[in-house]
Amino acid sequence: MVLDEVKKAYRPLIEKKLELLLDELITNAQSEHQRLYFSSLKEFILRGGKRLRPLSLLMVAKGFDDSIDEDSLINASLSVELLHNGTLAHDDVMDNDELRRGGPTLWTIFKDLHKQEWGGNSADAFGKSIAILQGNTLTTLAFRSLLDSGLEEDNVLRAVRALNNYYDTVNAGQLLDMLMEKQGVTGEDEYLRMVHMKTGALFEASLVVGALLGNAGDEGVKRVSDYASMMGQAFQIQDDILGSFGSKEFGKPTDSDIREGKRTLLVIKAFELASEEDRKTLASIIGKQGASAEEVETVRKMMRECGALDYCKRKARELVAKANASIKGAGMSEDSTRFFIELADYSISRSV
Amino acid sequence: MVLDEVKKAYRPLIEKKLELLLDELITNAQSEHQRLYFSSLKEFILRGGKRLRPLSLLMVAKGFDDSIDEDSLINASLSVELLHNGTLAHDDVMDNDELRRGGPTLWTIFKDLHKQEWGGNSADAFGKSIAILQGNTLTTLAFRSLLDSGLEEDNVLRAVRALNNYYDTVNAGQLLDMLMEKQGVTGEDEYLRMVHMKTGALFEASLVVGALLGNAGDEGVKRVSDYASMMGQAFQIQDDILGSFGSKEFGKPTDSDIREGKRTLLVIKAFELASEEDRKTLASIIGKQGASAEEVETVRKMMRECGALDYCKRKARELVAKANASIKGAGMSEDSTRFFIELADYSISRSV
Repeated sequence: MVLDEVKKAYRPLIEKKLELLLDELITNAQSEHQRLYFSSLKEFILRGGKRLRPLSLLMVAKGFDDSIDEDSLINASLSVELLHNGTLAHDDVMDNDELRRGGPTLWTIFKDLHKQEWGGNSADAFGKSIAILQGNTLTTLAFRSLLDSGLEEDNVLRAVRALNNYYDTVNAGQLLDMLMEKQGVTGEDEYLRMVHMKTGALFEASLVVGALLGNAGDEGVKRVSDYASMMGQAFQIQDDILGSFGSKEFGKPTDSDIREGKRTLLVIKAFELASEEDRKTLASIIGKQGASAEEVETVRKMMRECGALDYCKRKARELVAKANASIKGAGMSEDSTRFFIELADYSISRSV
Repeated sequence: MVLDEVKKAYRPLIEKKLELLLDELITNAQSEHQRLYFSSLKEFILRGGKRLRPLSLLMVAKGFDDSIDEDSLINASLSVELLHNGTLAHDDVMDNDELRRGGPTLWTIFKDLHKQEWGGNSADAFGKSIAILQGNTLTTLAFRSLLDSGLEEDNVLRAVRALNNYYDTVNAGQLLDMLMEKQGVTGEDEYLRMVHMKTGALFEASLVVGALLGNAGDEGVKRVSDYASMMGQAFQIQDDILGSFGSKEFGKPTDSDIREGKRTLLVIKAFELASEEDRKTLASIIGKQGASAEEVETVRKMMRECGALDYCKRKARELVAKANASIKGAGMSEDSTRFFIELADYSISRSV
C-alpha cells in the first residue's frame, strides 16, 4: 500500500515540524498566559488528526515534480494543516462544542483558566474570545508556512492566492451550514454543495496548492481539483453513514447523529424515500435527545428499508469511481496516482 | 495642505472601489440572508472611517515610485482597510460592543435578525458566529485585493508576507490587551507596547506595504515603519486625552473613558503622579458607571494638577517630532513627505 508507506514516511516529519513551529512560539512567549495560548495550540494540533491534507499536498507536488526540495515542501504542507485547525478553533466557538479529538476544545481550555484565575463570571465569553484569536493566529501561521517555505516564488504566489480563495469558501460553507440549520429542510444538492464548501474545500485546497507548487499545468490542476471535490463528498457521505450506523474506530457513539438530529444525506434521503407514516416516525425520533436504543434502531431499520442507506452507499461509490478516473489522467507519477486511488478507496471502505 | 488635497482626490476613489467590491458579492448572493451578510459588510465599512490606512499606503508607494499604476495601487490599498474592518468585526464580538460609528455592530445586526426570524433564544450566539465569519471573510478579501491588484508580482509577494505578519501582531496585541485587562495594573511601557501592537500595527502595515509596492530599499522601509510606529502611539495618546477631556467632533461622550474605567496613558500616569490621597479618590471614581458630572470633573482636575495631562501631551509631541524626523529621511517625494508630516501634526492637534 502506497498510502501506508507514505503515512509512515511523512507523517512523523510533518508532525515534527508542527511541533518545532509551536515550540518556538512557546519559548518566545512573554508571560505564563501567552505561553498557554501557544502550548494549548500545540497540544490541540498534535492531539490527533490523520494529516491527510498535508500528505496530499506533498504527494501531489511530488507527483508533478519529483525534483522539488522535500524539506521546503514539508514546510509548505503545514499550511493546510494549520489552516484546517484554525477553522476548527472557530467552529468550536460557533457550535459551542466542548470536546474534540477526545479533549477540551480551545475555548473550553480558556474558559477553565478564567474560572480558576478570575472566577466563573464571563468565563465562557473570555474563552471564546481567546479561541477567536487563536483561530486567527493559526490562519496567519498557515500563510506564513507557505510564504516562507523556501519554494519558488512564482509558485508560492499562485499557491497563496489559491489557499486564500479556498479559505473564503470554507467560511462561506460555514455560513451556509448555519443558515440551513435555521431554515430546516434541505435538498440533496444543497446539502452536497454545503459539504463541498465547508469540509471539502480545504482538502481540495491541499491538492490544488500541491499542484501549483509542483508546476502542474491547467489540466493537471483541474483534474486534482475535480478528484478532491468528488472524494470530499464521498468521504462526508461515508462519515454520515458511520455517524448513524457506526463503528467503534470512528470514535463516537454510533447513534449520536440520530439523537442530535444532524442533517445528513442519509436523513435527507430517508425523508424523501420513506412512506408518509414512516416519515412521521422518523420526524418524531430524529433529533430527540432522549431517544431509546430501540427508537434509534427503528430509525436505522427505516433508513435501510426505504433504500436511503443503499442510496448513500451507491452515491459514495459513484463519486469515488469518478474521482479516481479524474486523478488517473492528471499526469502525476505512478506512486502519487496510486496514493490517491488508495485514499479514495479507503474513504468508502471504512467499516460500517 | 497636501493632506486635504490627497483626501479629496483619493478618498472617493477608494470608497468607490470598496463599494463595487461589496456590490459584486451582494449581487452574487444566493439567498436573502447571504445578501444581508454582504450588504451589512458594505454598510458597516462605508458607514465611516477616514481611510487613513489606504491613503497612507497609496502615498508611500507613490512617494517612492511615481510611475506605479494608480488604479492597481488603489486596488492594493483596499487590503489594509478591509483587514482593519475585519479586526473590528472580531473586536466587537470579543468586547460585546453593540455600537460603532453611530450604528449597530455586525454581530448586533445578526442578533436582531435572529430575534425577528427565529426568536430571542441564542440570538446573541448566532449574531456573534456570523460576525466571526464576516471578520474572516474581510481578511480573505483583504489579501485578495493585494494578490489581485495587478501590481508587480515580486513586490506583491513581499507585501503579502508583511501584511500577514502585521495581522499576526494585531492578534497578539488584542490578546495582550485582554490579558492586561484581567490582570489589572499596567505600566507605561507595557501600555505603549500593547497600543503599538493592537492599534498601531495596521497603520504601520499600510506604510510598509506601500513601501514594498513602491520598490523602496531597506532604509526606506525602516524609516516609514519607524514613523508609523511612533505616530500610531502619538495618535492613541491623543485619543486617550480626547476620551477624558473630550471634544464634540470625537463623537463620543467626553467622559466615557473615565466612567468606563478605560486604562489609558492618562490614567496610568495619574496613578503614578498623584498624591496618595488623590489616588484613592481617582480609584473610587474611575470605572464607576454612575459617576456624577462633578466626580468626573474632579478626576479631570486631578489629572491636570498632578501633571498627567501635561505629560501625555508632551509625550505625544515628542513622538510626533521623532516620527517626522524619520519620515523626512525616507527618500520619498516632497508631496508624500509633506502628507505624512501634516498627518502627524494633525494627529496631535485634534482639539482637546
